[in-house]
Amino acid sequence: MLNLYYSPGACAMASHIALEESGAAYEATRIDLRKGEQKTPAYLAINPAGVTPALATERGVITQNAAILAFIAQTHPQRNLAPVGDPFHMARFNAFNGFLGSSLHPAMGRVLFSRPPLEGDARAEAVEAALARLQLVEDGLLEGPWVLGDDYSLCDGYLMVFERWARGADLLDPARFPGLNAHLDRAQDRPAVRRVLEAEGLDRV
Amino acid sequence: MLNLYYSPGACAMASHIALEESGAAYEATRIDLRKGEQKTPAYLAINPAGVTPALATERGVITQNAAILAFIAQTHPQRNLAPVGDPFHMARFNAFNGFLGSSLHPAMGRVLFSRPPLEGDARAEAVEAALARLQLVEDGLLEGPWVLGDDYSLCDGYLMVFERWARGADLLDPARFPGLNAHLDRAQDRPAVRRVLEAEGLDRV
Repeated sequence: MLNLYYSPGACAMASHIALEESGAAYEATRIDLRKGEQKTPAYLAINPAGVTPALATERGVITQNAAILAFIAQTHPQRNLAPVGDPFHMARFNAFNGFLGSSLHPAMGRVLFSRPPLEGDARAEAVEAALARLQLVEDGLLEGPWVLGDDYSLCDGYLMVFERWARGADLLDPARFPGLNAHLDRAQDRPAVRRVLEAEGLDRV
Repeated sequence: MLNLYYSPGACAMASHIALEESGAAYEATRIDLRKGEQKTPAYLAINPAGVTPALATERGVITQNAAILAFIAQTHPQRNLAPVGDPFHMARFNAFNGFLGSSLHPAMGRVLFSRPPLEGDARAEAVEAALARLQLVEDGLLEGPWVLGDDYSLCDGYLMVFERWARGADLLDPARFPGLNAHLDRAQDRPAVRRVLEAEGLDRV
């Protein structure tokens, strides 16, 4: 059976949502980042990089949200979780997820998780960089109503993670980011997302 | 016809190599980062994020190396550039490229491209973080002789970009990173890689 290693509210939620949307039978194992569980020998044997998510399958472990999302979509084609039949549209799906993982996530993480916390000019600069990346999504990457247009895809559950972080940090000004705010509300209405929030012990934001 | 927007020696070289390995007819358009050409209105109309690579196709633009590499492999299956027929192996291909884009690239970039340049403890800490990620590749992500094992894939041209950066910055100690050093030499021996280095005006390192 599939087993997802995740940290509540962290980016692994994207993979958690993907599994829930897929209808697959799976287990989910919580890794508490505050307790350093991602650096224990037991977890490093699963993912030597010491980060979540990691998806254990019968054939081996898959890491990285973008790879896990494409894998879940491809192995559950009847659920229409990604445009798996068309290499060009699949490239757009992968590119959006790549942007989240390589650009929006690090920018948001710098604002929220720097230790010691950023202050003064350094914080202002980091906030500016994160807002600029959210703006790229608002202005075009998010086609609307869903990321890829009319159809929900696993890009949406991934984007929602960062929209939640941004709203929680008062960075998702409704006047500046109307599209992202509407998208977050829409995503949180999905039954699969509600089930994941409950499983991770989190409230709607 | 495909048109790749790239910056010489930058991470877009991974997509440049992929096109050369694929045998596709393509054009390559140089974007000079030092002149700020990635921020001109003309280029922002192609990729609003203002970064390279971007691959213009007849159907639209694809960004992000990981997405471009999967697309090129899927549309040229006869070249065996990725395990496109197997979702699990393709997930491993995508996960490796995701690790490069979201983890190794930012860590190396912080060492090499911070402006103003990092100094003292900040530089030492950044170097340590970059070396730790190179070590993950040395210790296991690189199966050998190629990233995915016996067969060359587009993961190899992408990894090579960062091996070149690391060797150029004296961070690729042969005693600590024998696998990466051998991989870099092997990759630079490939005819397609040689053609790309020549096209980008770069020497073998």
